[in-house]
Amino acid sequence: MSRILAVHASPRGERSHSRRLAEVFLSAWHARYPESKLTRREVGRVLIPPVNEAFVAAAFYPEPEARPLTMQADLALSDQLVDELLGHDLLVISTPMHNFSVPSGLKAWIDQIVRVGLTFNHTLDNGVAQYEPLVQGKKALIITSRGGFGFGPGGELEALNHADTLLRTVLGFIGITDVTVVAAEGEESAERTFAISAAEAEQRLLALVREL
Amino acid sequence: MSRILAVHASPRGERSHSRRLAEVFLSAWHARYPESKLTRREVGRVLIPPVNEAFVAAAFYPEPEARPLTMQADLALSDQLVDELLGHDLLVISTPMHNFSVPSGLKAWIDQIVRVGLTFNHTLDNGVAQYEPLVQGKKALIITSRGGFGFGPGGELEALNHADTLLRTVLGFIGITDVTVVAAEGEESAERTFAISAAEAEQRLLALVREL
Repeated sequence: MSRILAVHASPRGERSHSRRLAEVFLSAWHARYPESKLTRREVGRVLIPPVNEAFVAAAFYPEPEARPLTMQADLALSDQLVDELLGHDLLVISTPMHNFSVPSGLKAWIDQIVRVGLTFNHTLDNGVAQYEPLVQGKKALIITSRGGFGFGPGGELEALNHADTLLRTVLGFIGITDVTVVAAEGEESAERTFAISAAEAEQRLLALVREL
Repeated sequence: MSRILAVHASPRGERSHSRRLAEVFLSAWHARYPESKLTRREVGRVLIPPVNEAFVAAAFYPEPEARPLTMQADLALSDQLVDELLGHDLLVISTPMHNFSVPSGLKAWIDQIVRVGLTFNHTLDNGVAQYEPLVQGKKALIITSRGGFGFGPGGELEALNHADTLLRTVLGFIGITDVTVVAAEGEESAERTFAISAAEAEQRLLALVREL
């Protein structure tokens, strides 16, 4: 786990709790592994374009090796984001829960890195689609901040969580199945209430520096 | 249900199955209720900007009536999208499932219409956040196309569905609890397989013209 890709999804900067928690992890990681490499990918404050019709046509072009130049252009950003993902060992995603899911910028990034032939394969078996993950040997850490409470495993709002659970589903689909989630909850409650949850998240993140 | 707001989220145009299915419903509705009003909101082929830090600051500004002009500008699109939603009786959303969730453009629209003080209220009770929906008397119909199979209620991949389930969660959060989902499944399987599912969806949509 010597190469980390940190994807930051909060629209907020200094006021972002998920960013602050990510820095707790990343700086402790750097202190322990000073020679590890860190790449950052901003998807919260920089626009990641939604995939469009040209992307769909190019991505599913039947002969990828013979894609016309314009189609190659349609996939250029996606190619870059996929290469970036494949070139690292540990994916760290910091994101708030926004309206029960991830911010739209992070969803746009997901749609750019789920690529047939690169991160998953799609075949037909008796006319029924079969999918095969193509990404191997990576781990992911999701660091998230939630306005409410009870969205974690066993929590009373677990079924309404479409944020880190979506990330776990999508990452698993492309082959990243070793996924750890660390959440701070209650950002929209009183400051002191949230501070307790955030402090627990920090402790967990510091422990993960030794465990991952 | 005399005013319909149709939100279209597919990045694809003529090739979009969710769009085609939506037109089956909308044209049958128009034939039955020729005086009903239809408004369209494109979020798949037109960029709906992600909410940014300025949006968050403005939306949660403690005195909404006294927002500075720049903050009013930061919320102008959101205001317009909220007004549009509140000005209709039936919300029809057509969307593909993309990577287990909705396309990023539809998530951006969601983030624009979930507005404190307008579509939900947020209060503190002993320091713990409480939420109250503010939208009343509306219904929603979600028309969706999925690449795979088994994402519906009771299906073997139900737990991996973060698309229409997310929409149901968010719409419920703002007060739209009467939500119907019609899905066609298997778009990434053989054409004939998908055609059967799509035909069933069409029949269900025609029946819903009488039921909604």
